[in-house]
Amino acid sequence: MKISLEEIAKTLKSVDNVVILIHHFPDGDTIGCGFALCRALQNLGKKARVECADEIGEQYGYITENFVFDDFEPDYVIAVDVAAKNLLGDIKEKYQKIDLCIDHHATNDFYANKTFVDAKSAAACEIVYEICRKLGGIDLVQASALYTGISTDTGCFKFSNTTSKTHRIAADLMEMGVDYAEINRIMFDTKSVSRMQVEKDALNSIKFFCGGKVAIMTITKESRVNSGAKDSELEGITGLPRTIEGVVLGITIRERDNTDICKISARSNPPVSASDFCTLFGGGGHERAAGCEINEPKEKAFEMLKNAAEKMFEELGIK
Amino acid sequence: MKISLEEIAKTLKSVDNVVILIHHFPDGDTIGCGFALCRALQNLGKKARVECADEIGEQYGYITENFVFDDFEPDYVIAVDVAAKNLLGDIKEKYQKIDLCIDHHATNDFYANKTFVDAKSAAACEIVYEICRKLGGIDLVQASALYTGISTDTGCFKFSNTTSKTHRIAADLMEMGVDYAEINRIMFDTKSVSRMQVEKDALNSIKFFCGGKVAIMTITKESRVNSGAKDSELEGITGLPRTIEGVVLGITIRERDNTDICKISARSNPPVSASDFCTLFGGGGHERAAGCEINEPKEKAFEMLKNAAEKMFEELGIK
Repeated sequence: MKISLEEIAKTLKSVDNVVILIHHFPDGDTIGCGFALCRALQNLGKKARVECADEIGEQYGYITENFVFDDFEPDYVIAVDVAAKNLLGDIKEKYQKIDLCIDHHATNDFYANKTFVDAKSAAACEIVYEICRKLGGIDLVQASALYTGISTDTGCFKFSNTTSKTHRIAADLMEMGVDYAEINRIMFDTKSVSRMQVEKDALNSIKFFCGGKVAIMTITKESRVNSGAKDSELEGITGLPRTIEGVVLGITIRERDNTDICKISARSNPPVSASDFCTLFGGGGHERAAGCEINEPKEKAFEMLKNAAEKMFEELGIK
Repeated sequence: MKISLEEIAKTLKSVDNVVILIHHFPDGDTIGCGFALCRALQNLGKKARVECADEIGEQYGYITENFVFDDFEPDYVIAVDVAAKNLLGDIKEKYQKIDLCIDHHATNDFYANKTFVDAKSAAACEIVYEICRKLGGIDLVQASALYTGISTDTGCFKFSNTTSKTHRIAADLMEMGVDYAEINRIMFDTKSVSRMQVEKDALNSIKFFCGGKVAIMTITKESRVNSGAKDSELEGITGLPRTIEGVVLGITIRERDNTDICKISARSNPPVSASDFCTLFGGGGHERAAGCEINEPKEKAFEMLKNAAEKMFEELGIK
């Protein structure tokens, strides 16, 4: 059932012991939503805590350090930035009944008792910003959490999901004293040594085809093991090949642990469809970003991808 | 002599043949200012053109393609985003008298007849945005140019110079239809193959000291020559070492062409002062970003920098 922002604010004022669930592999947006909303409720004198199936990254310490959570029996359970129940990860069994879901994914499947979805919001934190305002104002802890969610979900206002409203909310939050430059330094200009190592190996592996229009990069098992990089440290690395000038199809081969399966990511620029390309290998996705799996060693996968790309470019008449 | 925005608008309405000068090695802000202002004047039926000592990068084609410039004798000469006359480069002799300067550098030395400086503006384009509004409104060509200047001078709203006003202006410009996602893709997510090559070599060269707190990277003459990278393609590369987690002093050695002089860039995080460090070698700069030159081959420069960093960290008691 749908619910309005006004009804959300009214309901939240009437409940006392609230658990806020954020999605597994937590990112800036779900963390920002969870902690900002938690603070808003605590500021109203209510008991509130945030729960997540996975550990929250150390880089978000400037948000989480402001919170101490009590153990209590909730009378109201909220999920924020969680499009489907299985995205709660290992805590989905613990909370069978979700009273309220606040989200910005068009794919939300209305698993909660009441749901507010605004797919035009670049970040779920834009919605929580409105709710926090209705709950009695935004303090610096909330503002920093909300800015984090908005900034990270838009690639620092870079991506097409950013709207004029996104910028106006960021302006408001900055005027509340958010240390946005430091937040952005942590979120966008800090790479772990392991990530740097994998990136170096990956860059060294790049091969070009079709006159520089296709780039194939390989991330080997060996590189990941030697560097000690966790999966969470490699976020966004598959975008690298397409950032090279002239490349319209950037392919990343990621060798899996303990199997011969290679995970393939493709990123494209017009007129090439990454989705069409991945469909050739039984995968799919969006027009500009898609994926598939190839059940072969990386060298074989490389040859298959190269041949498929060359054939596709010939058929499309791209020279 | 100082001039107000109102007086600028009044003056610009009264002149007919205007040349707008932008600084040499032109960046997004000076280009955005120049072309937006030029368009505003052309929309008022005036003759106007932009002049630059250096070629404007191809990546700015979506701005420049909207302009055809006539040759005419100017009755008014404006410099935008040009803090000192020598930053005009090779055209500084051609235009002895500058009637008006519009700038956001606190270091502006008031070389023009009339000057408007607002050092609180993250980009000079923020000032030109106000002027364009006073001159009769902003069309899509102007809006795209202004957005480019604002986005590039703030690292896409990432850096500390960004203000709430910056965001509100960006919001206004976006509502005029600017293709901000494509502009940001060109400006921030596109690297030339040469740049990628140099970056790869540079990453391979990084050495860590002081328990990972100091990183020294070397950009060799050989790497630049082999890759064919122009200086303009290497913008920002010296920031790389400091982006590595844990690094508080990131040093870049850039081997010069045809000489033994090495150009050194240092970037730091608290409590280390890049400026103090570079002062040891007769250089200087800002607290977090400074530079110097070492008149030695790169291997010798490397040893000197390493030793100086280790000594400095010992003195500061950083472990």
